[in-house]
Amino acid sequence: MTQLHITKPLTIFVTGCSRGLGLEFVKQLLTKQKDSLVIATCREPSKAEDLQKLKEGYSKRLHVVPLDVSDEKSIEKVPHVLSKDLGISSIDWLINNAGYVDSDSMIKVYRTNVIGPILISDALIPYLTHDLSKRDYIPRIVNLSSLLGSITTFQSIKHNADASVLSAPSYRCSKAALNMLTQCIDKDLNDKIQRTYSDSKKGVIVIACSPGWVVTDMGTVGGRKPPLTSEQSIQGMLSVIENVKLDDSGKFFSFDGKTLPW
Amino acid sequence: MTQLHITKPLTIFVTGCSRGLGLEFVKQLLTKQKDSLVIATCREPSKAEDLQKLKEGYSKRLHVVPLDVSDEKSIEKVPHVLSKDLGISSIDWLINNAGYVDSDSMIKVYRTNVIGPILISDALIPYLTHDLSKRDYIPRIVNLSSLLGSITTFQSIKHNADASVLSAPSYRCSKAALNMLTQCIDKDLNDKIQRTYSDSKKGVIVIACSPGWVVTDMGTVGGRKPPLTSEQSIQGMLSVIENVKLDDSGKFFSFDGKTLPW
Repeated sequence: MTQLHITKPLTIFVTGCSRGLGLEFVKQLLTKQKDSLVIATCREPSKAEDLQKLKEGYSKRLHVVPLDVSDEKSIEKVPHVLSKDLGISSIDWLINNAGYVDSDSMIKVYRTNVIGPILISDALIPYLTHDLSKRDYIPRIVNLSSLLGSITTFQSIKHNADASVLSAPSYRCSKAALNMLTQCIDKDLNDKIQRTYSDSKKGVIVIACSPGWVVTDMGTVGGRKPPLTSEQSIQGMLSVIENVKLDDSGKFFSFDGKTLPW
Repeated sequence: MTQLHITKPLTIFVTGCSRGLGLEFVKQLLTKQKDSLVIATCREPSKAEDLQKLKEGYSKRLHVVPLDVSDEKSIEKVPHVLSKDLGISSIDWLINNAGYVDSDSMIKVYRTNVIGPILISDALIPYLTHDLSKRDYIPRIVNLSSLLGSITTFQSIKHNADASVLSAPSYRCSKAALNMLTQCIDKDLNDKIQRTYSDSKKGVIVIACSPGWVVTDMGTVGGRKPPLTSEQSIQGMLSVIENVKLDDSGKFFSFDGKTLPW
């Protein structure tokens, strides 16, 4: 796994940062990228104690912004907060990390895991493409997917091969849909950029990324024992995000840099 | 394309039959399978004139049942109608045909195209597996998907290669999710059947099927000119459905019998 060595200050927007992988993203972004600015969002900042503690140590480089990705009205407020409150006009990375698992509500899972990312991406595209003609760093959108969203991988598992295989249709279906959404955003956005600039070196890298099976509240459901810590998973994903090229746009990466099948 | 020659009477349940592919499914099932019973559902039978006309000619073999696949309560009524009103205890084919396209409402599209099929499948599984130990015909569930749901295929299209390529994220995402759902139903149902019977010849064939690009209200949006008639598409899909084997369960077929990538 290569080390992270981003050579210039970046502005990075991450959703779902109150705990788990989102919180770890923020921690590593602040400690490993010395001059970067992190906009960390979560539903209720006042209840996100760990995030607030981080804020104490990084008051100038960390902005905590309230955002419920399952609520369209909450998303609509983001541009105002960015432009007016924070004076931010340009974003380099959007990490659509916020996710939801619930076996009972397919709608709520879809709203959070798929509709949230499309609406947030739409809202932030003006920031990701701001002054694109002058920028020499290629912006990127990262959709946190899952190996559970890989239809090909699930199909290859034999019936009854492993009783611990989770079907979890609501979650699996949402992540397969998020993978398709990654393609849709890649195609729509980069086609538009090409029509505007006619420069094959201009674009936004849009990828889906699987964190692997990680020790989080989600990963340990039912007493299961994941092999990865969130530190390892995020270290891997940051390396992937930093090292992808424009040609990689539209791909589905594992945290360890491997390409995953749809 | 092989001709349809089903050798025994089947009971077939089809959703979304007021027009388009659903109506054509019903027509061909009635004319080509002489002793089969067709349960054709649609939201408002009283407004489905073409379906009612068919009913006149096939009063004993066609039952028209009201069903809104986007409405959980409507789905809950189906078992009562089948068992009490129609005296049906066993179904051979479930064709989840009803679909919806709307670029504005991702939720409504998901509710119809993904949540509908999972709820209807759950409701009809007792009928599909009824007396399975004694049945010598393998029941099947067919989810009407689309080539637009193939993430692999969409990824392979070059940027700007064809301006007529539809992104349509709400529809594409729903069909990718439906493809994953096909895997989930296949795994859950056939694992359960194996645990019950320990007989590798028992099971339910669960497949996703793409109708191809067909001259329907949906296919001709924006003045586009599809190469297939609904007659050709349905003829192909009926041949696929009839000829699949238990080993094919979990696959994604095109109307012409080819296997499609996820």
